[in-house]
Amino acid sequence: MPIDAVIAGGGVIGLAVAWRCAERGLRVTVADPAPGAGASWTAAGMLAPVTELGYEGRELLDLNLAAARRWPSFAAELGDAAGSAVGLRECGTVAAAWDAADLAGLRDLAAFHASLGLRSEVLTGRELRTIEPALAAGLPGGLLAAGDHQVDNRSLVRALRAVVARLGVDVIPARVTRIAGTAGGTEVTLDTGDRLAAGVVVVAAGSWSGGIDGLPDPPPVRPVKGQTLRLRRPPGLLGHVVRGSVRGNPVYVVPRTDGELVVGASSEEAGFDLRPRAGAVYELLRDAQTLVPELSEAEFVEVSTGVRPGTPDNAPLLGRSATDGVLYATGHYRNGILLAPVTADAIADLITTGRTPDLVTPFDPARFQARTEARTQGGPS
Amino acid sequence: MPIDAVIAGGGVIGLAVAWRCAERGLRVTVADPAPGAGASWTAAGMLAPVTELGYEGRELLDLNLAAARRWPSFAAELGDAAGSAVGLRECGTVAAAWDAADLAGLRDLAAFHASLGLRSEVLTGRELRTIEPALAAGLPGGLLAAGDHQVDNRSLVRALRAVVARLGVDVIPARVTRIAGTAGGTEVTLDTGDRLAAGVVVVAAGSWSGGIDGLPDPPPVRPVKGQTLRLRRPPGLLGHVVRGSVRGNPVYVVPRTDGELVVGASSEEAGFDLRPRAGAVYELLRDAQTLVPELSEAEFVEVSTGVRPGTPDNAPLLGRSATDGVLYATGHYRNGILLAPVTADAIADLITTGRTPDLVTPFDPARFQARTEARTQGGPS
Repeated sequence: MPIDAVIAGGGVIGLAVAWRCAERGLRVTVADPAPGAGASWTAAGMLAPVTELGYEGRELLDLNLAAARRWPSFAAELGDAAGSAVGLRECGTVAAAWDAADLAGLRDLAAFHASLGLRSEVLTGRELRTIEPALAAGLPGGLLAAGDHQVDNRSLVRALRAVVARLGVDVIPARVTRIAGTAGGTEVTLDTGDRLAAGVVVVAAGSWSGGIDGLPDPPPVRPVKGQTLRLRRPPGLLGHVVRGSVRGNPVYVVPRTDGELVVGASSEEAGFDLRPRAGAVYELLRDAQTLVPELSEAEFVEVSTGVRPGTPDNAPLLGRSATDGVLYATGHYRNGILLAPVTADAIADLITTGRTPDLVTPFDPARFQARTEARTQGGPS
Repeated sequence: MPIDAVIAGGGVIGLAVAWRCAERGLRVTVADPAPGAGASWTAAGMLAPVTELGYEGRELLDLNLAAARRWPSFAAELGDAAGSAVGLRECGTVAAAWDAADLAGLRDLAAFHASLGLRSEVLTGRELRTIEPALAAGLPGGLLAAGDHQVDNRSLVRALRAVVARLGVDVIPARVTRIAGTAGGTEVTLDTGDRLAAGVVVVAAGSWSGGIDGLPDPPPVRPVKGQTLRLRRPPGLLGHVVRGSVRGNPVYVVPRTDGELVVGASSEEAGFDLRPRAGAVYELLRDAQTLVPELSEAEFVEVSTGVRPGTPDNAPLLGRSATDGVLYATGHYRNGILLAPVTADAIADLITTGRTPDLVTPFDPARFQARTEARTQGGPS
């Protein structure tokens, strides 16, 4: 039987796309040398459109907000379909101010949130410690983003792998090295030398998406190395995701219901060097312990390293590539977990209806192609 | 065929004793739930009678010095017999002074060394950086102990396991829970429920030695938790073992020839809790990076946790117990790797000749028994 869709990449994006396509009756194959083991496994699972707000513009904010709204039903549906819990925890996020200047910055941020219609609340030092008693004494205040939640990204990976297996998706442990349009469809070459023919190919290979041969418009993704630590304490140390900027160094602590605490995340441009760096481990522990002193007593469980797929405008590439029959679902940078539900629905819709949902049209991969052509054409300006 | 010797414990002490006994023609069985996986695996492998010198008295110093002298021939012989390298590196040790007061302390220590006939040399800041250019700028000086070396403790474990296997020693993956004298010899009970009869039993179970039932004079060992980190850089960063006391916190870095760097060691009394503690990882990284800044760029490979068998006088128990047919080779505290060669020879000699070598007579286990009896007898003083 012919394959309808080959998904190059089996992280949360690729697996979620595979799920939604298989659900719609397509025959789907996922190719990944280590499904779910990349950035999806290293991530902390924050679903934080408000506290992760940057200056990338209204369209990305709207996408992130839509994704956050989609999460509860996505998690419920996936949990039922997979037969295993996804670990969504609707706990809110507290950003702690490190000093008075930092608190002033959080007040400005709250005003900016209000101007955008986003929900956040400035907290005094006393209010901060009332809702999170484990925070260091003396912090001057903070910000509560009651709608920024978290999901256990590893439970999410397990649930997605289970649901695609139930739906008969073929997961091949190999890397896609080449994609080429042919008369009858699209041909994919794997690093095993095998070739697959498919009606459509979805490139969801994260940081590796730009290294696939045969594409005239390779996705402009670059690997942005990140490290997270897994610690463990008896459950209940923290009630919210806690984040802060300690002497200018951003750090967060994501408490799971079972006592696991994910501390993240370093950010370095170091190519595909996935080795954990001792200095990053040191800095994460230093800054996390400064915010939450009792973390020094936590069990040190694991260091994990992954590469986020960064893009020139920090926004994802969602939609048609320059090659017929090849779609991109990559470049999610820091928001791959958050954006998995909307990405999966949008790509499955595009494949089955031929129409790109309005929500994702601003993220058309052609935006980079146009820029490249403009630069290439040059001329006086 | 009857077993001549059962060794309770398969760390470097137990395995080295097993080797020397098997070499002398005895039928030997080692019982350990995880041979070589305890403190022997966590250790850094320093062979450092001079820089580890404490105030435990001349007899322990003499034992440590004899052990250090024994190491080169022990390593050569073991490497040949096992067919695998033991990883002895005769590189010397540099103790770096953190500040002027610390340097004054090292000068006093050098004078103390000289009074004992030990070899050490005070270094200026310039001399320190000449022999170890990777040390932090501005350290005021240090001390060179040219005879304090190191061995790769994990290569040592592998070599000992190989050599006992070659000699037909039976290694049973079980814990000894009870030892009892019988008319015909000694009976050992394992946690599997199995029983073994042996001519002699050697208790070499490290921190677990005191928990074996049936012994009227259980070894007074207590677990002293220690954590080490394994980092990795291209070989050549350090030429010596480097140690120091950063704001009063002792730390050392042991460079293997292959680029592995062992950083140690925390010290806590936490029972048998073997979970790595985040605060200890943080402090080791902080202090090691302070001495050797480039360690921040090293790969973070592993955290390892073990429990050293501490004793009331910090010296080992080597020799006969109060039970006929039961010997003790335990309580080596911080010096188990260093003392493995002399311990193994002494115990094998005692078993085969009935005579305790002079070198180890000060470490007769009965010294604690006598104290206990004296206290029990009480009376006016």
